[in-house]
Amino acid sequence: MQYGVIMAGGSGTRLWPMSRAERPKQLLPIIGGKSLLRLSFERLLQFLPPERICVCTSAAHRAQVVAELPDMARGNLLGEPCPRDTANAVGFPAAVLLKRDPQAVMAVVTADHVIEPVDRFAQCIRQGFVVAAEHPESLVTFGIVPTFGHTGLGYVHRADALSLQSGAAGAYRVSEFKEKPDQATADRYVASGDYYWNSGMFVWRCDTFLAELQQHLPESAKGLATIAAAWDTPRQSEVLAAVYPTLPKISVDYGVMEPASLGKGKASVAVVEMPVRWIDVGSWPALAEVLKSDGDGNVTEGGPAVVIDSQQNIIVSDDPEHLVSAIGLRDMIIIHTRKATLVCPRSEAQRVKTLVDLTKARFGTKYL
Amino acid sequence: MQYGVIMAGGSGTRLWPMSRAERPKQLLPIIGGKSLLRLSFERLLQFLPPERICVCTSAAHRAQVVAELPDMARGNLLGEPCPRDTANAVGFPAAVLLKRDPQAVMAVVTADHVIEPVDRFAQCIRQGFVVAAEHPESLVTFGIVPTFGHTGLGYVHRADALSLQSGAAGAYRVSEFKEKPDQATADRYVASGDYYWNSGMFVWRCDTFLAELQQHLPESAKGLATIAAAWDTPRQSEVLAAVYPTLPKISVDYGVMEPASLGKGKASVAVVEMPVRWIDVGSWPALAEVLKSDGDGNVTEGGPAVVIDSQQNIIVSDDPEHLVSAIGLRDMIIIHTRKATLVCPRSEAQRVKTLVDLTKARFGTKYL
Repeated sequence: MQYGVIMAGGSGTRLWPMSRAERPKQLLPIIGGKSLLRLSFERLLQFLPPERICVCTSAAHRAQVVAELPDMARGNLLGEPCPRDTANAVGFPAAVLLKRDPQAVMAVVTADHVIEPVDRFAQCIRQGFVVAAEHPESLVTFGIVPTFGHTGLGYVHRADALSLQSGAAGAYRVSEFKEKPDQATADRYVASGDYYWNSGMFVWRCDTFLAELQQHLPESAKGLATIAAAWDTPRQSEVLAAVYPTLPKISVDYGVMEPASLGKGKASVAVVEMPVRWIDVGSWPALAEVLKSDGDGNVTEGGPAVVIDSQQNIIVSDDPEHLVSAIGLRDMIIIHTRKATLVCPRSEAQRVKTLVDLTKARFGTKYL
Repeated sequence: MQYGVIMAGGSGTRLWPMSRAERPKQLLPIIGGKSLLRLSFERLLQFLPPERICVCTSAAHRAQVVAELPDMARGNLLGEPCPRDTANAVGFPAAVLLKRDPQAVMAVVTADHVIEPVDRFAQCIRQGFVVAAEHPESLVTFGIVPTFGHTGLGYVHRADALSLQSGAAGAYRVSEFKEKPDQATADRYVASGDYYWNSGMFVWRCDTFLAELQQHLPESAKGLATIAAAWDTPRQSEVLAAVYPTLPKISVDYGVMEPASLGKGKASVAVVEMPVRWIDVGSWPALAEVLKSDGDGNVTEGGPAVVIDSQQNIIVSDDPEHLVSAIGLRDMIIIHTRKATLVCPRSEAQRVKTLVDLTKARFGTKYL
């Protein structure tokens, strides 16, 4: 059977003060009142019933996730007791699903991006399932067609087209994964037409993935097998709490996909081209791109605002009882929450993380 | 006897959202934790005992004034039921004081400015009392030595020096009051050396002032006499509430000082030079001038703030539990209160009043 797994870890520091330790980016109701997690869930509902969608998240956010996804099966919420990076965050649901269904094939998707159009996304994931069905040894990754030489992303270098009996096009063997490149290299990748942005989304048979995990990260594979053995039994929580923290912290790209792409295991790595708008909303200017703006280019979300002679500003509040007002501002960001207010030019949005670090150093977690 | 009267009306709209209808500028604890009213009171304490200091304010702010001035005699707090402009705001205490003391001489001072040095201020007011003693028919105004051609102030044109038996210098006959001039005229005034900024501060015998009021504004004089007759009797409140709203709305400059300076009454008008720093703190940049700044020129008052790479900003909060943070800001104003946040460049500070009007039109008084 086919399953969807949403990776909903991460904190979204660059969306502080709206995103906080206790309410990370994925859970903010910031896009038409919906959270990124909800949008990700709804994307999967295009081709999967809710009972076959899992969410892997921090155990601390369990209640908020349930509130966001009331239509999700409770047993499909996998709460990590602590973050152990993505190799385990995908391996954990793979092990649980394999226990429940020896034929399980899973699509791993993220909740960090807005993806448009949703139909095309769904079509690509479906094609990933086709590849995994025809080539059961495949680990299928999804490659976003790059629109510029992004230096903050990994790249996937495609090789020959993959032949499929179904005749579907757009799937390739992967020749290599590339870490974040410098600008000249990134520009060369884009110009070549042979590179994709590494989306962090995958499709694979759970048995194929776990065999590969066993090959490259045997300690993770062993721990996750122990957890899976206890899953859906009374010992589930106890074993999870005991074993999960012992798993080695390593990313799925570095720990599994890269060695697999180099032929170091039994699996082969394929990439399905995903020609979508793939919008990282991890910073305020990026988020503003997907929000509605007024005639002056001002984006106003959440609470009341009064502006005079102001253009291209981002004003977000979580307090309908508090007024945010501006005069003569251009290209500024104003974020108001009950705990804190942030003001900075759009061009400084990447430094919000630094500000959060400084705030933590000075005040502890009081305002985080 | 000599008395001091503090005029503490006005709203201070340009200091919104910190100043509000229910907490006007004079009552904000913004200068080293003291309000402008408190500072004004303490300036008078330099040469007057507290029982001879009166405050004329809106009746609505009575409780806040008492809290700010616990050392003031309660009977000296004159609460206007409604604003009737400055001719009545000074005439009201003049009438009350004259009833209590037929020899009363009063100094009218404002609570809108920071004045430095305080010693010199006190010396000038004392000299005003000398002028009023030697020339009992005088209405004494105080002229601030102008430092630039301010177009937002009225000017006092001095004539001959006033001869005083005590030999004190710096007092002159007034030849004319001038309304707010255009820039060229203002510059000419300053260059001439014969003009002062009209401070709105005065010294006069109460009987002299009220006689002049009778001459130029008989309706006001009659109403205030009715109020004074009932003052310190059980009918005080009732008569005040009935009569005060009927008084004609007019300023003391336009209604009394200008006609008096033109010789239309019995009084003569004198000006005492007041060579002080007279700082109108009626806007955020002006207020910031008298507050402490850090090494980057940032003024931070009231609540916690974290700033990165920011210079010459004004950050004021009234909430110690709320963090205001900034990255890469220059010459900006950020004011945070529980009701509202204002962000604007320093250069736009004069438009805060427009913003308040717009806010009122859109939301009523909710955020004011």
